[in-house]
Amino acid sequence: MSVELGGHIVVTGTNRGIGLELVRQLAEKTGVEAHIYACCREPEGTTAQALRELTLKHPGKITLIKLDLADEDSISAAVQTVGQRIGPDGLNLLINNAAVNKPDGMASLQNVRKSDMMDVFEVNVTGPFLLTKMFLPLLQRAVSRSKDKGDEMSCRRSAVINVSSLAGSIEKCPENFHFAHIYPYRTSKAALNMLTRCQAEDLSSQNILVMCIHPGWVRTDMGGEEAPLSSEDSVVGMLRVMSSLSRKHTGTLLDWEGNTIAW
Amino acid sequence: MSVELGGHIVVTGTNRGIGLELVRQLAEKTGVEAHIYACCREPEGTTAQALRELTLKHPGKITLIKLDLADEDSISAAVQTVGQRIGPDGLNLLINNAAVNKPDGMASLQNVRKSDMMDVFEVNVTGPFLLTKMFLPLLQRAVSRSKDKGDEMSCRRSAVINVSSLAGSIEKCPENFHFAHIYPYRTSKAALNMLTRCQAEDLSSQNILVMCIHPGWVRTDMGGEEAPLSSEDSVVGMLRVMSSLSRKHTGTLLDWEGNTIAW
Ligand SMILES: NC(=O)c1ccc[n+]([C@@H]2O[C@H](COP(=O)([O-])OP(=O)(O)OC[C@H]3O[C@@H](n4cnc5c(N)ncnc54)[C@H](OP(=O)(O)O)[C@@H]3O)[C@@H](O)[C@H]2O)c1
Ligand SMILES: NC(=O)c1ccc[n+]([C@@H]2O[C@H](COP(=O)([O-])OP(=O)(O)OC[C@H]3O[C@@H](n4cnc5c(N)ncnc54)[C@H](OP(=O)(O)O)[C@@H]3O)[C@@H](O)[C@H]2O)c1
Repeated sequence: MSVELGGHIVVTGTNRGIGLELVRQLAEKTGVEAHIYACCREPEGTTAQALRELTLKHPGKITLIKLDLADEDSISAAVQTVGQRIGPDGLNLLINNAAVNKPDGMASLQNVRKSDMMDVFEVNVTGPFLLTKMFLPLLQRAVSRSKDKGDEMSCRRSAVINVSSLAGSIEKCPENFHFAHIYPYRTSKAALNMLTRCQAEDLSSQNILVMCIHPGWVRTDMGGEEAPLSSEDSVVGMLRVMSSLSRKHTGTLLDWEGNTIAW
Repeated sequence: MSVELGGHIVVTGTNRGIGLELVRQLAEKTGVEAHIYACCREPEGTTAQALRELTLKHPGKITLIKLDLADEDSISAAVQTVGQRIGPDGLNLLINNAAVNKPDGMASLQNVRKSDMMDVFEVNVTGPFLLTKMFLPLLQRAVSRSKDKGDEMSCRRSAVINVSSLAGSIEKCPENFHFAHIYPYRTSKAALNMLTRCQAEDLSSQNILVMCIHPGWVRTDMGGEEAPLSSEDSVVGMLRVMSSLSRKHTGTLLDWEGNTIAW
């Protein structure tokens, strides 16, 4: 299956888990004109080995970008590097995928410290906030240069996809709280959903689509071994959803199958 | 009008605005056995003059407590001081009212810096998180010593009220975003709503009620001069709502008139 995505695409947190699989499938399923900027904290380190191998399999299609979302200077350096490589085209799609869950385990009231709350918010909310803010000129450029006209919105034209979670649904919290308390993570994803909704409103008149997607419960370091979904199946669904988005989806929270999740 | 509230009550952010009015009406409307712990950053400073005058009007009924929610040591010191004064009774009602909105004005995407996001989250979310966590033993003690029996919940027995905002409703965001962007504030209140919902689930089996309340748009330093509601009318409504809460209200978001607000 090919996907209706292309152009210049930035993905964060791509050295493992869902992010790595996003890069893999995007590299395979997009056309020759597409280019993927795969961000990770240590592009040269041992933790990025699989990502480097993937890059070699698709010569010229993937550029590794060093990015630590907890470090504002790292964010602006990454944006600058991507901007130089993109040139006049602009950025078509930013996928804010990277996230942390601290402390390990249940993250119950008694185990969570102030630093856990602050650190998780910093990476999961302030990171995407700053990255989107700094990429805005490139996203705007993509709008004006796209074949899409007028007030059309799509992930091919100019879009920000925030990878959120069912665990960030305030409405659904009572249904799954006892499965995993994870106070810092839940509050961060609820905040990310609000950020998404604000940016969707803010950028709507500029025809930039902003929404959030829940990948399902996926077998990764974060999701754990008992998770029912493989990264592969999750990403097949996520890319199908992203391919189908239009103006009516800006500001929504959908899962990897396209179902709406209550806030 | 008297209110069905009493026992030991902690209120934060009481030197001005809604917090000051909460202390004023609680001091007037509760019985002689009630005691109010009024927290503020500088109990001896010029910013607490009105609060000190209020204390003199109600001899023995109000204790000023020094508390800076951005400072973990200050939080634990405040909890310890309150604990010593309360003695064996326990804490019946904690009202997390204090909050900040930064930067001043619209707080639009371009004006908001990383430090604004972090500072607002620290005070508005991590503050109430830590305060509730540290007061938990005193809240538990109040449950077991109350006249209410079994699984009854009320603000007279043991409750945490988080003062949230309509601006924290993700659902309603498109209706009011263009009136005030306030990214740091909105994301913090959405996170506070999630925190409320998590703690409500967590503490439900211990019969501690946790909910959040929107005070309306109120004429204070934060609300501004054009706000339609006086602090007095807002607090009359808030105390009426708090007086009426029972188990079915734990984990909800209500406004000062008792109406449910969507997440
Ligand atoms: N797995 C699930 O079941 C599930 C469910 C719902 C939502 N999600 C969401 O899906 C997304 C991907 O999750 P995943 O399961 O693939 O998680 P994962 O396996 O734990 O991978 C997380 C990725 O984020 C990166 N990251 C962490 N902190 C970073 C920072 N400060 N700066 C830059 N990158 C950072 C990690 O890089 P390092 O290797 O350098 O740490 C890694 O590449 C996340 O947003 C997560 O919340 C996952
Ligand atoms: N006014 C409205 O229209 C409105 C609408 C919706 C929700 N709310 C909510 O209602 C609550 C009260 O708002 P308000 O209008 O009364 O606001 P306000 O007039 O700005 O008062 C805020 C209070 O919070 C205190 N505070 C700020 N930072 C603090 C910190 N680090 N540690 C301890 N205390 C701190 C302030 O103390 P200092 O004097 O020391 O700064 C002050 O007492 C807030 O939760 C607000 O979000 C208000």
